[in-house]
Amino acid sequence: MNYPKGIKEQIKKTETLTTYGKRGMTLEKEINDSNTYYRESNKAFIYKKPTPIKITKVAYPNTNSKVIKEAYFDVPSTTDYNGIYKGKYIDFEAKETKSKTSFPLKNIHDHQIQHLKRCALHGGICFLIVRFTTLQETYLLFQHDLLSFLEEQSRNSIPLSYFREKGFRVPDKYIPSVDYLEIIEQVYGGVLNDK
Amino acid sequence: MNYPKGIKEQIKKTETLTTYGKRGMTLEKEINDSNTYYRESNKAFIYKKPTPIKITKVAYPNTNSKVIKEAYFDVPSTTDYNGIYKGKYIDFEAKETKSKTSFPLKNIHDHQIQHLKRCALHGGICFLIVRFTTLQETYLLFQHDLLSFLEEQSRNSIPLSYFREKGFRVPDKYIPSVDYLEIIEQVYGGVLNDK
Repeated sequence: MNYPKGIKEQIKKTETLTTYGKRGMTLEKEINDSNTYYRESNKAFIYKKPTPIKITKVAYPNTNSKVIKEAYFDVPSTTDYNGIYKGKYIDFEAKETKSKTSFPLKNIHDHQIQHLKRCALHGGICFLIVRFTTLQETYLLFQHDLLSFLEEQSRNSIPLSYFREKGFRVPDKYIPSVDYLEIIEQVYGGVLNDK
Repeated sequence: MNYPKGIKEQIKKTETLTTYGKRGMTLEKEINDSNTYYRESNKAFIYKKPTPIKITKVAYPNTNSKVIKEAYFDVPSTTDYNGIYKGKYIDFEAKETKSKTSFPLKNIHDHQIQHLKRCALHGGICFLIVRFTTLQETYLLFQHDLLSFLEEQSRNSIPLSYFREKGFRVPDKYIPSVDYLEIIEQVYGGVLNDK
């Protein structure tokens, strides 16, 4: 790509800043920040759902307060993120792996995969975002490519090569740092409601 | 909004069934059951979000378990329910009141009202479901009618008469017990994706 003179230098500087600024930030935190950016710039309205908790004991230290004294993490029955972008329902799950070669399927619950499949049947745009943290590479894999892999393979992990072949590399930017909507725009641009 | 002629009358005529089996059930429980029915019958994919909790202490009784020992209920930043119906993003909040005359606005957070408004700007179908428990009457009020009221009135409650005039009475059925999608179907039928 031929950038106008000086632009490439700016970009290089941005990339350095990005990597430095994001050191230690988890994918979840970066996606939350990206969603905040999308909401504040009125681009999309997408949230992470609260973590499902099963509450077993509650105390009332005084009449106006209520404290949970015992609770357990529940197995999530849905994916973590959903919302709306240009009239379209968006639904996804995001996971990190330290592996340099593949994404272990034990990282995602079977009912989350079924959830993505069923949301897509109802007309949603559904996908998985996987970050290979050691490689600093993040991919978006649409549910139909995830499902195809699971139907055709009996492996317990999805190789990085499959993400590189069928997935979309999520651009590593400063703001928003995980700009997954750029991919949705490229792939689904024609059917989105641009009003 | 100008609804197509006759729509409001059709809805008013919908038969109200007796509700012996539901005595004592909360609106939340009935909506959850209705959503389960919608999902299992593959009609829609709509969930209640988990309650937002701020966790302050976690214990590890042994290597495989994790128990929350102190947590607080967070103020919700979004509405409680969202999902997809025939390709359309659906977003709503549900509230009960014992009042026989009006719905007190303190029952709904201002950011939840803003949330409904903003989701609608992105193309979602957004509304409030209010049950007057003493009267056993449940209404669906679309966000634009909710917002109109708030812009024109400085009252701290919405009178029942406003729900009767602008809202839609939710049919009281056996299964699903809160069939709000029947209203969505009648009002938005033309723009839904019936593929």
